[in-house]
Amino acid sequence: MSNPCIICVAITGSLPTKANNPAVPITVAEQVESTQEAFEAGATIAHCHVRNDDGTPSSDPERFGRLLEGLREHCPGMIVQFSTGGRSGAGQVRGGMLPLKPDMASLTVGSNNFPTRVYENPPDLVDWLASEMLTYGIKPEVEAFDLSHIVQAAKMAEDGRLKGPLYVQFVMGVKNAMPADEPIFDFYIETLKRLAPDAQWCAAGIGPQQIVLNEWSVRKGGHART
Amino acid sequence: MSNPCIICVAITGSLPTKANNPAVPITVAEQVESTQEAFEAGATIAHCHVRNDDGTPSSDPERFGRLLEGLREHCPGMIVQFSTGGRSGAGQVRGGMLPLKPDMASLTVGSNNFPTRVYENPPDLVDWLASEMLTYGIKPEVEAFDLSHIVQAAKMAEDGRLKGPLYVQFVMGVKNAMPADEPIFDFYIETLKRLAPDAQWCAAGIGPQQIVLNEWSVRKGGHART
Ligand SMILES: [Zn+2]
Ligand SMILES: [Zn+2]
Ligand SMILES: [Zn+2]
Ligand SMILES: [Zn+2]
Repeated sequence: MSNPCIICVAITGSLPTKANNPAVPITVAEQVESTQEAFEAGATIAHCHVRNDDGTPSSDPERFGRLLEGLREHCPGMIVQFSTGGRSGAGQVRGGMLPLKPDMASLTVGSNNFPTRVYENPPDLVDWLASEMLTYGIKPEVEAFDLSHIVQAAKMAEDGRLKGPLYVQFVMGVKNAMPADEPIFDFYIETLKRLAPDAQWCAAGIGPQQIVLNEWSVRKGGHART
Repeated sequence: MSNPCIICVAITGSLPTKANNPAVPITVAEQVESTQEAFEAGATIAHCHVRNDDGTPSSDPERFGRLLEGLREHCPGMIVQFSTGGRSGAGQVRGGMLPLKPDMASLTVGSNNFPTRVYENPPDLVDWLASEMLTYGIKPEVEAFDLSHIVQAAKMAEDGRLKGPLYVQFVMGVKNAMPADEPIFDFYIETLKRLAPDAQWCAAGIGPQQIVLNEWSVRKGGHART
């Protein structure tokens, strides 16, 4: 198979708290334990957020460091991906953990609306995060919340700001951004193949859209995420 | 012809100054004069920004009021469209001139990157601008800087936040947003027709892309803009 199936596990999103769901792993020890279960069940990528003790999103490099250490020990060979998403802070704080050299890190290359606010990824921050990933040899997972993000990622790969081949995740089902829409999903794939023929992709559906997106993704040649 | 050709003239953008181009009309009198020339040459919509005396972008309702008055007098029957774009201010200031009841106003329903910054259109501001347009009977021109903006506009028309039929402008050629890309342009048209079959559309290319976009637009059944 030329496109081996990669199962990506997002152990802790940036939003759920113990109050929403007591099963959500919050501490580093809980995260390592729950990732190890997924790893043993076949997951190959761990997409990681970290939390403060009170459960709020954090970008603390010390926490990311302990998580990386735990995963290296308990999930040998697993691809560790750190989130540089904006819920945990603003500006360069979002990339403060990149010197820890995770295998991958998420990177959003444009801005868009979220349910109640603007997800701000200004051009200079995007370029800085991308350059840090080049410096530390980290493979970006481009988070595409809209079509222009796919185009922008291809452009950044072409002009050397990102190292190819691209790995892009299509994110759908976010209120006020892109809903889960199959013709648009197909056009995402088509556009990515046209502009970056060697790229690989996966898909993430938010909330109830997760199962729908996984089904499309598996059927159309992407990687799955749980 | 079921889709009569509308020529839209953007007399003063939000950015050029006299220093860039001495021919740019800045004062209200200059704007009225230059719009009248375009009107007599066949333009049917005037897309209007206003400026402070020093040439910087403004949202001043008093200036918009004088401009509207001048256009009503010198260009009778012309459709006057006010810009609620973000270069002239932040928050509800951007819609402070809507009680003047222009025929149309621009409305961006999502956020995206601009060349050096985030173009911020938070959900609550979008909803407020849309509700002001409903209150004052103003037809919105939806400015689509990305694909999700088309989807969001269709959703807002469906749930009553915007009064249909939609009028959408595809904006391409903005650095760090969507470049001028013909397959994407075609998909914009296809998506709009699928989600809002009675919608009309036009296109705007920024800078050197203007001619390209006008050519696509005329050929594919949209309205032109100069
Ligand atoms: Zn993934
Ligand atoms: Zn994440
Ligand atoms: Zn127009
Ligand atoms: Zn404008």
